[in-house]
Amino acid sequence: MRLARSTLHGSLADPVLGSVSFLNEIMSRYPEAISFAPGAPHPEFFTTLDPHSYIERFLAHLRQDKGYSNERARRLLFEYGPSRGIINDIVAETLRRDEGITAGPSEIVSTVGAQEALFLVLRALFTPSTRGAVAVANPCYPGIVGAARLLDIPVVPIPESSNGIDIDRLADTCSIAAQARQPIRVCYTAPDFANPGGSRMPVSTRHRLIELAEHADFLILEDNPYGFTALGHQVLPSLKALDTHERVIHVGTFAKTCFPGARVGYVIAGQEVDDGGSLADEIAALKSMVTVNTAPLAQAVVGGMLMADGGTFTQQNRLKAARYQRNLDCLLTALDAGSKNWPEIEWNRPVGGFFVVMRLPVPADLALLEISASEYGVLWTPMDQFYLDGTGSHRLRLSCSYLDVADIRRGIARLSAFIEHKILAPGFGHGVAPEN
Amino acid sequence: MRLARSTLHGSLADPVLGSVSFLNEIMSRYPEAISFAPGAPHPEFFTTLDPHSYIERFLAHLRQDKGYSNERARRLLFEYGPSRGIINDIVAETLRRDEGITAGPSEIVSTVGAQEALFLVLRALFTPSTRGAVAVANPCYPGIVGAARLLDIPVVPIPESSNGIDIDRLADTCSIAAQARQPIRVCYTAPDFANPGGSRMPVSTRHRLIELAEHADFLILEDNPYGFTALGHQVLPSLKALDTHERVIHVGTFAKTCFPGARVGYVIAGQEVDDGGSLADEIAALKSMVTVNTAPLAQAVVGGMLMADGGTFTQQNRLKAARYQRNLDCLLTALDAGSKNWPEIEWNRPVGGFFVVMRLPVPADLALLEISASEYGVLWTPMDQFYLDGTGSHRLRLSCSYLDVADIRRGIARLSAFIEHKILAPGFGHGVAPEN
Repeated sequence: MRLARSTLHGSLADPVLGSVSFLNEIMSRYPEAISFAPGAPHPEFFTTLDPHSYIERFLAHLRQDKGYSNERARRLLFEYGPSRGIINDIVAETLRRDEGITAGPSEIVSTVGAQEALFLVLRALFTPSTRGAVAVANPCYPGIVGAARLLDIPVVPIPESSNGIDIDRLADTCSIAAQARQPIRVCYTAPDFANPGGSRMPVSTRHRLIELAEHADFLILEDNPYGFTALGHQVLPSLKALDTHERVIHVGTFAKTCFPGARVGYVIAGQEVDDGGSLADEIAALKSMVTVNTAPLAQAVVGGMLMADGGTFTQQNRLKAARYQRNLDCLLTALDAGSKNWPEIEWNRPVGGFFVVMRLPVPADLALLEISASEYGVLWTPMDQFYLDGTGSHRLRLSCSYLDVADIRRGIARLSAFIEHKILAPGFGHGVAPEN
Repeated sequence: MRLARSTLHGSLADPVLGSVSFLNEIMSRYPEAISFAPGAPHPEFFTTLDPHSYIERFLAHLRQDKGYSNERARRLLFEYGPSRGIINDIVAETLRRDEGITAGPSEIVSTVGAQEALFLVLRALFTPSTRGAVAVANPCYPGIVGAARLLDIPVVPIPESSNGIDIDRLADTCSIAAQARQPIRVCYTAPDFANPGGSRMPVSTRHRLIELAEHADFLILEDNPYGFTALGHQVLPSLKALDTHERVIHVGTFAKTCFPGARVGYVIAGQEVDDGGSLADEIAALKSMVTVNTAPLAQAVVGGMLMADGGTFTQQNRLKAARYQRNLDCLLTALDAGSKNWPEIEWNRPVGGFFVVMRLPVPADLALLEISASEYGVLWTPMDQFYLDGTGSHRLRLSCSYLDVADIRRGIARLSAFIEHKILAPGFGHGVAPEN
């Protein structure tokens, strides 16, 4: 049988879902191109990974610290397990040591990456009958927007500066939304080097956001995949660490600090529910109907990796942060070198994270990407999908995380040639209209 | 802050979600009890598992059969990967050999167990604006009901006999539902030894169901976790193998044939969408917003295990089927031995699978389970959650999969004592009213 598009869920027609597959397709067609597209960890950190030894380390922990027999410990890897996870105590200890976050194991749910955590939090907090919306920065990580669309939850964009989400505008939006009987129930934010905007929220703004959450009665959904890229002297406390009102739900991932292929993340949601239990309990119950539990084998690999490093990623993260900082500096320096003749082209200057956003005088769409890839051998991410108000059409994202310094330099040289020949040269512009 | 229950999603108040955690809690309080509760694979099959060797086997496959460098092969384990999965070709080959199912890798999406597959299929096929319902057998696997509730999709129970879902009643329900403008869009069924009812659909009924799906315009969501327990001479073709109208979406899991702790399952959904692509493409896109992808490391373990067995589980499954058949026979024989004085107690006699359903003259509720556990050292699953029409209150489920034969005998002896002393003895009955 043929299925009519109109009978399928509306989120499937969303550009957020379609653009990812197109980008993958174009990357596979130009394997020799230098790609600034993937926001993935640098592959050099995978060369020494040894899942077998991490599993053995985790099994040793179960035997030595918890008194498990070898057989019982092994079973934990292979059997079903509790929805909330089997490494929550190890995760709690790492969060305490590395991020100054105090959370008991029972406040934590292990999830299939941060994405499932975001999805489950939204499911728990929104009902079809109580109207409500989620506020996000504009531009925003497509994963939160996609999860909201999948659940038919309205998403409200709030302007973002290099200091993060605009708190005054968020406050105004909360007032207007409450009057319109579609209150902001959740504000999603990545306070450190957000994807894609690279913004970083100063501590004073973090305090203001928590105060506003208390005043306007919403929850903060904090996602922090890039905080670790701050070198020692730049580290700021997370919203969760500053939260004295239990307004923050904190989501994390081991994709960047361990590796993405384990698909292990977590959510901290110790908020009480009035008839007993906590939001973490509710999230674990929901999880049992989405993925049952996070693969115990994958949790064991991550847990063992954490134990092997003494329950802290500080040393590892310092090495990784240095690599990403070097890459980001290289990217910005290379752009500066080429930019003397580019008055119409702008980009931001984030102080950490993986991403730089560039604005062109012409649409940075898939047609332009095709020319960039086929004629100049350089790939980037069109940003239309990151902006909820249509203002992303002329923007592209450059990610520096996956490349070596030499490739970043070569790639920016290619991008410079592309910009000068195809975008800035008189008579070119591949037939597209300049920005209105 | 304290969250009001009324502001959380309604599925969280559903008994299906609550009962699982209570059952886990009671099992942890009585660790010495013999438990007929878990529908989990027998632990003897885990003793020889060796994830390390399966990963190495998968890496060898990538190098030898696909020409990957060692570095590129290793990266596949550790990096993000495509939402649809990295072992779909191996899964397709296994399905062809073991189940006579013809499906190309592009029709398959690897999922976090069968549960995520069920969830994603429901999300793709139901929209808030086009009204529709999912039909399920009564009694039914709570996972499909929970997933539907999480998405606010109405669930319609259809009576089930030992021959599976009642096709005539399903046809009537389709007519009535269409007139009420809430058409049945999907019928969920587990044709082989369904959990919990143990029913098995004869081939003629399978054909009738497919014809009805074509006639009444619904899709069949086939879930087949227990089909492998059929010994050679009992094997029936799956609905997917019989489907000539592309009416069947087939969901599978490696939880029973490999092990649950990998959390790897799959869905076959080759149905075309009218504006291009297939339902599998849509499911992969949705998956990117729920879990991004299934842990590549876990997929590699399952893929390597499949390769190590020559791309077929036939031999392994025969061993497993023999174990479960022996356990089921032992359970039924032990019940028969104790039953001569139990005129008021009934149970079914499935010919395969993990489960027997027993009906008591008193409510088989959590209070009764507590007595059974504390005074008689035997655990079972109350079945209220499996029945959508309230008729499960006096029923309990006995699972034979996780126990050894000796424990099954000892456990049924304990259950017999419990039944005779607490349920059938005059003056007992723990103060509950007999069934209406």
